[in-house]
Amino acid sequence: MHNIDRLFEAVSEKGHVCVGLDTSADYIPPAERERAVSDPEAVLAFNRAIIDSTFDVAACYKVQIAYYEEAGLAGLAVYVQTLRYICEKGGLAIADIKRGDIADTAARYAKAHFEGEFKADFVTLSPYMGMDSVEPWLAYAKDKGKGAFVLMRTSNKGMRDFEYLPIMPDSLSGTMQNNRLYHAVGNKLSELAAAHSGQYGYGVFGAVVGCTEREEAAEIRKNYPRLFFLIPGYGAQGGAADDAALLLREGNGGVVNASRSILKAWNEEIKNSGDDTASATNRFAGDAARRAAVTMRDAIRAAADK
Amino acid sequence: MHNIDRLFEAVSEKGHVCVGLDTSADYIPPAERERAVSDPEAVLAFNRAIIDSTFDVAACYKVQIAYYEEAGLAGLAVYVQTLRYICEKGGLAIADIKRGDIADTAARYAKAHFEGEFKADFVTLSPYMGMDSVEPWLAYAKDKGKGAFVLMRTSNKGMRDFEYLPIMPDSLSGTMQNNRLYHAVGNKLSELAAAHSGQYGYGVFGAVVGCTEREEAAEIRKNYPRLFFLIPGYGAQGGAADDAALLLREGNGGVVNASRSILKAWNEEIKNSGDDTASATNRFAGDAARRAAVTMRDAIRAAADK
Repeated sequence: MHNIDRLFEAVSEKGHVCVGLDTSADYIPPAERERAVSDPEAVLAFNRAIIDSTFDVAACYKVQIAYYEEAGLAGLAVYVQTLRYICEKGGLAIADIKRGDIADTAARYAKAHFEGEFKADFVTLSPYMGMDSVEPWLAYAKDKGKGAFVLMRTSNKGMRDFEYLPIMPDSLSGTMQNNRLYHAVGNKLSELAAAHSGQYGYGVFGAVVGCTEREEAAEIRKNYPRLFFLIPGYGAQGGAADDAALLLREGNGGVVNASRSILKAWNEEIKNSGDDTASATNRFAGDAARRAAVTMRDAIRAAADK
Repeated sequence: MHNIDRLFEAVSEKGHVCVGLDTSADYIPPAERERAVSDPEAVLAFNRAIIDSTFDVAACYKVQIAYYEEAGLAGLAVYVQTLRYICEKGGLAIADIKRGDIADTAARYAKAHFEGEFKADFVTLSPYMGMDSVEPWLAYAKDKGKGAFVLMRTSNKGMRDFEYLPIMPDSLSGTMQNNRLYHAVGNKLSELAAAHSGQYGYGVFGAVVGCTEREEAAEIRKNYPRLFFLIPGYGAQGGAADDAALLLREGNGGVVNASRSILKAWNEEIKNSGDDTASATNRFAGDAARRAAVTMRDAIRAAADK
């Protein structure tokens, strides 16, 4: 079974929330952080608490490798343990690694992140160097059901620098619409999806499309019906449930990532109650994360049902 | 002192060769590989032999992290040791990691690769998400002299998919020339270079420009005088000394990477001599690597002097 089909079914069952485990040590309740032998150990215990508490309401988890690389090899060991924990529970893990390199090198990366020690169910990829930096990953889609999300139109301000550049119209088609760089990427991914798709009609490789640009969301969803979207930009970056819902299709076809608003929900709850944050436990952080994930799930479902 | 200035001086003194330590375990003489306790240990011993032998003829070393990630945490430990070995000898190391992510995440990556356990002198970056994915790395240029090479026009076939796309001309300037995506990247990097440059006039952040497209090389060199180039595509990918020389400026301004042709020079020499490859040692591999690097250095110098 393709992971993209497993993800489709997880969305049907659990909703659209992708919990982003971009876990900085200072997101952890202070008492728990102090009790741990090291920050990486504290991050692992915290991640496990978050995964346990949100498991029935999260379609998948996205693990941002930068937050682990920052702590060196010990940090990456926790990255490995976090992926393994998600896998052992039967969950789906997206390795947010944004790799993009020439063919030989891409094959090494694919081996590392799809079958080596860092193995995950999905990866994120960067398309700048072209489709030969994406295609070596496809072998693992065929053999092992693996999936990927390729950067298309991201949620940061800098997306306007290159992703938004208007491409000269093809002299044959002559169309001036939908001609930005991100459309060119989307078009290539649609071709790939037409050739390699799962049982629910989505390509085994999807796209990263942020929910920060409301006016283009409906057009993007309409033009790329075969692409499953990994949707960043919710919450802290300004996207709302209504914006995210525009990128969904028939109630599925996308997962919406939230990181800090879920990981630090414990801190918000305590601040709002006037209690002392020093007393919070990982268990409380997990419960608060679950409440934040449920609120987000319900808001997106309601927006998608409109 | 900025690393880009150290690199400029290294090129003046040693020539233009960047030795690419894309070390696959099967590049190692079989007897040495068998003797080692593990493949990662064998790679480290081999890398040290290559670095020792080529040190006076290599301007810098580029370490491609994918070849180490493939072997998991043990592989990354060798990546760390390899960078450390180059640093301890007073050499310059480019971490070929092609990172590109939003601001917060980019700052974590920058910490990891510029001051953490993985620290290197330069990194490679991918520009797809925009300049806010590049700028967080600049803080380390100011504080610690670090440098970066941003993907501009690479040497793989897939570069035509996106890097080559013609951008609509600016309605004000109206020029139809030099309007590909890679020019847009080069223009942004030139702006950055104008604001942040070293004592020899090159921006602290340079660009990756392959030497595989001869007809554009002179134009690129002329349009981006402030950009120091990291030049892949030599040898196995088809670029020759004459092609690489077109990307240099007054005998400097670029380093030309070669990996396999240097790392596996021992194998070529033995094949050409008709001997049994099993007898090769790391010391012989180092000597052969040095001979290959000297040949390459002299060919590029001769082409640059024409």
